[in-house]
Amino acid sequence: MTRDRTLGVAVIGTGRMGSDHARRIDEVVSGARVAAVVDIDADRAAAVAARIDGCTSWTDPAAAMAADGVDAVLIASPGPAHEAALLEAFAHDLPVLCEKPLTPDAASALRVLEAETRLGHRRVQVGFMRRYDEEYAQLKSLLARGDLGRTLMLHCVHRNASTPPGFTGQMMINDSVVHEIDVTRWLLEQEVTAVTVLRPAPSSAAPEGLSDPQLVLLETSGGAVVDVEIFVNCGFGYQVRCEAVGERGTARVGDAHGLCVDAGGRWGGPIAADFVERFRDAYDRQVQAWVDATRRGEVTGPSAWDGYAAAAACEAGVRAQATGARTPVTLAERPALYAPEGR
Amino acid sequence: MTRDRTLGVAVIGTGRMGSDHARRIDEVVSGARVAAVVDIDADRAAAVAARIDGCTSWTDPAAAMAADGVDAVLIASPGPAHEAALLEAFAHDLPVLCEKPLTPDAASALRVLEAETRLGHRRVQVGFMRRYDEEYAQLKSLLARGDLGRTLMLHCVHRNASTPPGFTGQMMINDSVVHEIDVTRWLLEQEVTAVTVLRPAPSSAAPEGLSDPQLVLLETSGGAVVDVEIFVNCGFGYQVRCEAVGERGTARVGDAHGLCVDAGGRWGGPIAADFVERFRDAYDRQVQAWVDATRRGEVTGPSAWDGYAAAAACEAGVRAQATGARTPVTLAERPALYAPEGR
Amino acid sequence: MTRDRTLGVAVIGTGRMGSDHARRIDEVVSGARVAAVVDIDADRAAAVAARIDGCTSWTDPAAAMAADGVDAVLIASPGPAHEAALLEAFAHDLPVLCEKPLTPDAASALRVLEAETRLGHRRVQVGFMRRYDEEYAQLKSLLARGDLGRTLMLHCVHRNASTPPGFTGQMMINDSVVHEIDVTRWLLEQEVTAVTVLRPAPSSAAPEGLSDPQLVLLETSGGAVVDVEIFVNCGFGYQVRCEAVGERGTARVGDAHGLCVDAGGRWGGPIAADFVERFRDAYDRQVQAWVDATRRGEVTGPSAWDGYAAAAACEAGVRAQATGARTPVTLAERPALYAPEGR
Amino acid sequence: MTRDRTLGVAVIGTGRMGSDHARRIDEVVSGARVAAVVDIDADRAAAVAARIDGCTSWTDPAAAMAADGVDAVLIASPGPAHEAALLEAFAHDLPVLCEKPLTPDAASALRVLEAETRLGHRRVQVGFMRRYDEEYAQLKSLLARGDLGRTLMLHCVHRNASTPPGFTGQMMINDSVVHEIDVTRWLLEQEVTAVTVLRPAPSSAAPEGLSDPQLVLLETSGGAVVDVEIFVNCGFGYQVRCEAVGERGTARVGDAHGLCVDAGGRWGGPIAADFVERFRDAYDRQVQAWVDATRRGEVTGPSAWDGYAAAAACEAGVRAQATGARTPVTLAERPALYAPEGR
Repeated sequence: MTRDRTLGVAVIGTGRMGSDHARRIDEVVSGARVAAVVDIDADRAAAVAARIDGCTSWTDPAAAMAADGVDAVLIASPGPAHEAALLEAFAHDLPVLCEKPLTPDAASALRVLEAETRLGHRRVQVGFMRRYDEEYAQLKSLLARGDLGRTLMLHCVHRNASTPPGFTGQMMINDSVVHEIDVTRWLLEQEVTAVTVLRPAPSSAAPEGLSDPQLVLLETSGGAVVDVEIFVNCGFGYQVRCEAVGERGTARVGDAHGLCVDAGGRWGGPIAADFVERFRDAYDRQVQAWVDATRRGEVTGPSAWDGYAAAAACEAGVRAQATGARTPVTLAERPALYAPEGR
Repeated sequence: MTRDRTLGVAVIGTGRMGSDHARRIDEVVSGARVAAVVDIDADRAAAVAARIDGCTSWTDPAAAMAADGVDAVLIASPGPAHEAALLEAFAHDLPVLCEKPLTPDAASALRVLEAETRLGHRRVQVGFMRRYDEEYAQLKSLLARGDLGRTLMLHCVHRNASTPPGFTGQMMINDSVVHEIDVTRWLLEQEVTAVTVLRPAPSSAAPEGLSDPQLVLLETSGGAVVDVEIFVNCGFGYQVRCEAVGERGTARVGDAHGLCVDAGGRWGGPIAADFVERFRDAYDRQVQAWVDATRRGEVTGPSAWDGYAAAAACEAGVRAQATGARTPVTLAERPALYAPEGR
Repeated sequence: MTRDRTLGVAVIGTGRMGSDHARRIDEVVSGARVAAVVDIDADRAAAVAARIDGCTSWTDPAAAMAADGVDAVLIASPGPAHEAALLEAFAHDLPVLCEKPLTPDAASALRVLEAETRLGHRRVQVGFMRRYDEEYAQLKSLLARGDLGRTLMLHCVHRNASTPPGFTGQMMINDSVVHEIDVTRWLLEQEVTAVTVLRPAPSSAAPEGLSDPQLVLLETSGGAVVDVEIFVNCGFGYQVRCEAVGERGTARVGDAHGLCVDAGGRWGGPIAADFVERFRDAYDRQVQAWVDATRRGEVTGPSAWDGYAAAAACEAGVRAQATGARTPVTLAERPALYAPEGR
Repeated sequence: MTRDRTLGVAVIGTGRMGSDHARRIDEVVSGARVAAVVDIDADRAAAVAARIDGCTSWTDPAAAMAADGVDAVLIASPGPAHEAALLEAFAHDLPVLCEKPLTPDAASALRVLEAETRLGHRRVQVGFMRRYDEEYAQLKSLLARGDLGRTLMLHCVHRNASTPPGFTGQMMINDSVVHEIDVTRWLLEQEVTAVTVLRPAPSSAAPEGLSDPQLVLLETSGGAVVDVEIFVNCGFGYQVRCEAVGERGTARVGDAHGLCVDAGGRWGGPIAADFVERFRDAYDRQVQAWVDATRRGEVTGPSAWDGYAAAAACEAGVRAQATGARTPVTLAERPALYAPEGR
């Protein structure tokens, strides 16, 4: 398609993430429109569609993808539904922005990878939106320039104020640490080769049965070591920090503070409540970048390989969590389609 | 017009600001398109139009405003051309986003004000984009909550790395301090009543004949005192800071730092090169807010009264600069059309 | 005297400052002992002396200075008593550390200056202890290196949580801003030539009749401009900040924060309660430096000229406060004894 | 002894640390004097003694301890000489400030512990000077108040610009990480129970054969997990940071910055060159606290037990470094003499 055409997007899933993406495409992003929304809950899909001009609603992703005016697909349904939706998009040869995880496990991610490889060209961008955060982008760019030498370690902190009911230890890896896994792979341009998890005595604020916080250690193919504090019931807000330790210096993101108040005997300011507040701009930039690339006929951003490699590292992480032992990560061979850029 | 229609904007002026706004409406902002561009230099206008699908080019603002598909006007021509363009927009009853200054002096700003008053409804939003900066917005919101009590003083810093050839002392007031004048009026919801300017011995980096830096003192109708360091050849980058001193505490913006590097015996990070880098998001938000309000049939943001009051304070500032004396600011009576919100 | 002898100090005045200095010499400072304490309240002097081994108590400064084992004098009595004590110390040719102010007004300070000039050598160090603060010392050293070029402006903030009963507007100049006056003279190595005072509408937290805060503007012999926010009932703690604006960059002190806490939705830390907490180390260093120099037979630090020049600027400041007008500072000729170092 | 007597200190060892301690006692600390210095190099000892009034020089620690005017001992000789000197001090029943390590290994530390236990009262303070650093003291005090709940994790960073020739991997544990081991024990009031060491691919700036940096993981008796980045050839300066993660918030020290400079397109400031610059005040406070306690007839500060427990954890750390495996720390039973305070 050419740039003179507004991109018609089918949004699959109208839960929290899906309806927010629909709003974003409708109100924030330039050059795209929500052509269709899909949900197994027909009423919910219809309610979202009713708020958007020219938007139809569906319960079947395949039907939506075949509908008039649909040029691209944004998948924001629950993880287990991703594989089918991705394969359907491949069948229509439609570009896809797929919310993370690509799929819930490495085996299904590998099937998606193979299907895209058979297609012969990239169609999928995975929703690792931290790559579109201004601070992380600055850090990436600094490391890429090489001023600090090779990166030897990353120190990461990932904190949530609290968890919803039903949040499990496995979700600490699959839903939270997965971001640090992707950040590690992206910043270092190396694969994760092993995972170890240490579990301190849990906070008394942790829900019964949840070992929170944990310290996750990643090792990479280039010999770097990454430590991640994951603390999902820290109580005081949402925080993400990352310090890269290079041979000649270190660089840190995550402390940006716009407003400093001196009052009541204290200096300081507010902490973000959640990831929506902290990464709002990154979500906007991610979807705009996807729309822009798609209108140019390109696919950029995190690939299905990135989604697969993250899934494999998460699987090892969940095993490491259970056993307490250092757990290697095994990857399939990397298809040529996903060769690292610039090599 | 209704929300289901993309807003067709005529951009008047295709210099640095105008062409950037055209790019913004074309690539960044949701719900609007560049329907027409206008420049007395026909070739320049045509070149900009050629890059944008469905965009026509003109040398006469009136013709552009009358053209098919033009729903709104963004004025980014040189200040002396603003009055005529604004009156023409009023003649077509088109909503306008007018880059600051509204007009170059208080008398012409007053004529615009009176014309809009005769029209009977607001049509103009003035481009004081700091109001759309995330940090300033947080500061405004904090002061409005009243936690710090009444605001007694503002300490402001406004620094540019260097000035282009031909930059004069009057431009330090009219082009630079005008932002602090608007910020003062907006944060305090008070008018500026007097201006004093102190001129230290100039920096040896200042161009011949330019007294740089200067310290500008504003007094307001509520008895607040505001000091502004304006230093337009500081050499090291672009910086804007504002500290509000309240009865029970102070709040400060302008120190946000995303990336901190420890290397070579120093901690720290980069300083923005210019206002484009520092306020990129604010420009985006400003135009998006204008497009959104316009599509809803509303006019929000800084009004023609704000443009007029800033012009009057600037005039007093330029006189104060020349005389060294405290110079009162005199304002016309405020028409009911511009009554402060919420009163 | 030689370094092998412990310096016997007579402390004149045993109020808050005097008894703290006695404690400091007794417990913190190396190479000195409290040989005598003096107070018109004989009981208070005796109580302090009783806590210190080998210390005698007196009501008459002259008698104390003549006593056995007294090698030097620390004057911490109320300001109006300083002149007589200083002249008595000159009569005994004893080295003196005199708490600021040197004397309460410029005329009496000039008499002290002339008496020391007649003596023919420096005997007095004035207690401007900010010069011994680590941060200010770093700033002084940075400016002296010249990396930032000539200093064009200083932006100063001086805040106290609250004032004791009876605190007057004149004391805002004489007791508080006097520190910024000395800092200005010391950092810039220039004299203050004029003072202007702006008075915002007072804080509702200010005691009846006290115009608090105020903005004090100093001009210097080298053409620099200095603004000082003095706010003595800011409510939230003690803060002192100073930013020096040079031709090629700026440098700022006063934001050092040792401990940062993230909790309860906020990042930040505690603000010092008062000057004792903020400048404890500076007081210790000041007295140690005085003891060390005295034991070497030298007189260093702020001189009687510094005390006199500050008194003259304060007098102009108090007049400026009353009249609202720019008020010149007139100084006597500087005796050769007080020639600036290194010239 | 009573407070009216100046404490006569014998300083054992006149290398870098010993001669600096002699200078400190002579010039900085109140209430103490250097009565004797000891070194196997008689000339070096004599040279130090010659600069200090009333100071004798010796080659035999025992002789110095028996000399007139010696009331206390400061041991700053090489680690292997500590045990003999400590036992000699016990024989004279003299109070001792012993530079860390107490002794080079856990077995010899245990012998010292048993000797002091036989003496029946504490005589030894070990030189873990971070406990006397203002920032660490604030952190300790904050954690002790319990506002943040139980401490779950510590994140520590310990960086040196470069290492002297001959610096080994074992010294990274014994000389560097030993500080974090003591800080962990002191802040948490728990023993270290296991050590694991991860070794990233070394920096190209690391000397041949030195695996630098490393990530050391400590586990404690209360279930806390501590990660320590030790990087002794980071190239850019000396840095020590510590973040305590509690159940309800986190607190961090190590970022205090007195002076911030904006120039040359960057904001920021200098990083300390080495531990002498960073911890100068802590060293002063440590020795003053020891002198003050000794003059009161008390022994406070880190005990021989603290020295022994650190030595045991270091031994485990060195083994963990060699094997890559998690290594338990085994401690002897804690004698009643060293019962935790307040229990």
